[in-house]
Amino acid sequence: MSEPEHPDAPAVRAANAAFYTAFEGGDLDAMADVWEHSDRVSVTHPGWPTLHGWARVAASWDAIFRNTPYIQFVLTNEELCVEGPVAWVTLDENILQATGALDDGGEELAGAHVTALNLFVRDDSGWRMVAHHGSPVGAG
Amino acid sequence: MSEPEHPDAPAVRAANAAFYTAFEGGDLDAMADVWEHSDRVSVTHPGWPTLHGWARVAASWDAIFRNTPYIQFVLTNEELCVEGPVAWVTLDENILQATGALDDGGEELAGAHVTALNLFVRDDSGWRMVAHHGSPVGAG
Repeated sequence: MSEPEHPDAPAVRAANAAFYTAFEGGDLDAMADVWEHSDRVSVTHPGWPTLHGWARVAASWDAIFRNTPYIQFVLTNEELCVEGPVAWVTLDENILQATGALDDGGEELAGAHVTALNLFVRDDSGWRMVAHHGSPVGAG
Repeated sequence: MSEPEHPDAPAVRAANAAFYTAFEGGDLDAMADVWEHSDRVSVTHPGWPTLHGWARVAASWDAIFRNTPYIQFVLTNEELCVEGPVAWVTLDENILQATGALDDGGEELAGAHVTALNLFVRDDSGWRMVAHHGSPVGAG
């Protein structure tokens, strides 16, 4: 028998899902709704240095969305923990993305495997992401 | 003027420093003191998949220590946040490590740049690491 789920687990899971929905949709407004807008937030995209503060985090999403015509996530090994007003999710991002245009007008697709730690803090209106750290598996 | 530091910040900073001291020393007992011994802990070494649970986390440190004759960290850009019983530290690990033996009997040294997110939870006896995610900068 597994342990009973934390009462906040569904809300955290929804916040985490909203992050990937915003990412797949390339939707900066939806991504802004996911994040806490503060100086303490940080993002580490695979292979990138860590960026701090909502302004730099938002700018990085804008740049990624502009350069990603198509991306799809299959999420596996999701593990969720809640401790007071903080929650974290670890998972594997199995990514299919467009990397360039083909001669026939179609998109070239490539796979990638990223493992991520997503950190959330609860505020009055719900759970907000305060850190995302994704790293390439197999590139160490 | 910067904001006043959280009262728990020095203890979190000490826990984070103890992690790197244990790593540099290749000291599995000291590393065990740093971590929470539970199923929820996770570690992501640069380029590795995420490992879950204290048994797998401890085994990974044992393997790394056995294969790392020398490692030295210069830590930069340390940012520390505390929220209730949880704290996280982001920082850059500027690493100098031995990668092999030279013909003259000395060690070949190489540098590496890793960016990390370290997560801690407070228990009755202090702050324990529950997640370490390190990733190679420039390898994405």
